[in-house]
Amino acid sequence: MRSNDFSKIKNNMSPDIESLIQKFSRLPGLGPRSARRMVIHLLRNREQSMEPILTNLEQVYKNVKICPICSNIDTFTDVCSICSDGRRRKDIVCIVENVSDLWAIERTSCFFGQYHVLKGLLSSLDGRGPEFLKLDELQDRCRENGVTELIIALSATVEGQTTDHYIKNFFKNKNIKTTSLAHGIPMGGELDYLDDGTLFAAFSARG
Amino acid sequence: MRSNDFSKIKNNMSPDIESLIQKFSRLPGLGPRSARRMVIHLLRNREQSMEPILTNLEQVYKNVKICPICSNIDTFTDVCSICSDGRRRKDIVCIVENVSDLWAIERTSCFFGQYHVLKGLLSSLDGRGPEFLKLDELQDRCRENGVTELIIALSATVEGQTTDHYIKNFFKNKNIKTTSLAHGIPMGGELDYLDDGTLFAAFSARG
Repeated sequence: MRSNDFSKIKNNMSPDIESLIQKFSRLPGLGPRSARRMVIHLLRNREQSMEPILTNLEQVYKNVKICPICSNIDTFTDVCSICSDGRRRKDIVCIVENVSDLWAIERTSCFFGQYHVLKGLLSSLDGRGPEFLKLDELQDRCRENGVTELIIALSATVEGQTTDHYIKNFFKNKNIKTTSLAHGIPMGGELDYLDDGTLFAAFSARG
Repeated sequence: MRSNDFSKIKNNMSPDIESLIQKFSRLPGLGPRSARRMVIHLLRNREQSMEPILTNLEQVYKNVKICPICSNIDTFTDVCSICSDGRRRKDIVCIVENVSDLWAIERTSCFFGQYHVLKGLLSSLDGRGPEFLKLDELQDRCRENGVTELIIALSATVEGQTTDHYIKNFFKNKNIKTTSLAHGIPMGGELDYLDDGTLFAAFSARG
């Protein structure tokens, strides 16, 4: 079938659809193949799937706001629904790395205080210094709201622990208790499969 | 921290964002976790990522059309760019199960004829009968365009092969050659890891 006449014909796919696939494929967790599958599903279910997603995405795009107090992402309200919820305690603030960590904590329903979302963890490699932690703002907020405890809920990675240490140091001698999440065996975890560091931490913090 | 006062507070996430995550998680290849990651990425990159995707999706949504001749999906043009491309041969038609298969063949640039996209493969389980193959329409088209060959490019599954057989039978004694894709060892495939069926087919069709 291949002939010189036909070699000029190339890719008859709609450029709009192609660029949509390309844009989706750049999202985290998606590659070119899964993006294509997704877009084909959307195209084939124009009314049932594409339309509701489009409307919803439009709404979120228009109304998404970053809370000026805690940097949580919310829609419609200027101050996010957590900061403006009068039933939540204002004297305990939980420090998280990003909004997905905040949402993860919210899903557990174990915390009823407020949040402080960092702009990122300290990282000399990625050039993120203390200004990314917005600790001065947090200190002002602590003074205004009479915060008594800061829960530092960061990942147990090198960057997370460095940041944890820096924050603790910053609030030393400022009359605010700083606590960190406990390290130990995860629920359902078998001792046999645990790494040495976790086992060591679990032993040290036994009680 | 858990107390009766606080137990009423539940999930302070924006319902818009939550429903967007839910909608994305229903797409093929995505689950609740990957959908959440995707949405968070979009929220954090509102200008660079969310806006272009939104605009593009809107465009595709408005302009997407199903070709009345071959059932390919395209934007803007009523008759798809493959059917309306005068340089492509009209006397060879390739029968595919769906648009993603069509795109896969287009990417190889090995075929310069036209297509016929089925509504689905024959399946007694899912209740798909011969009307899903639109063979009468295809026959009319063959007569009009003087089609001499039909390439049946269906998956090597039971349903695919049943449909292949049905189409071949339908066009028997109608002066149109029907061919199927070759079965054999995939490129880069090691004999050792091949299933028996493929090896058998490769042996039978050796040449």
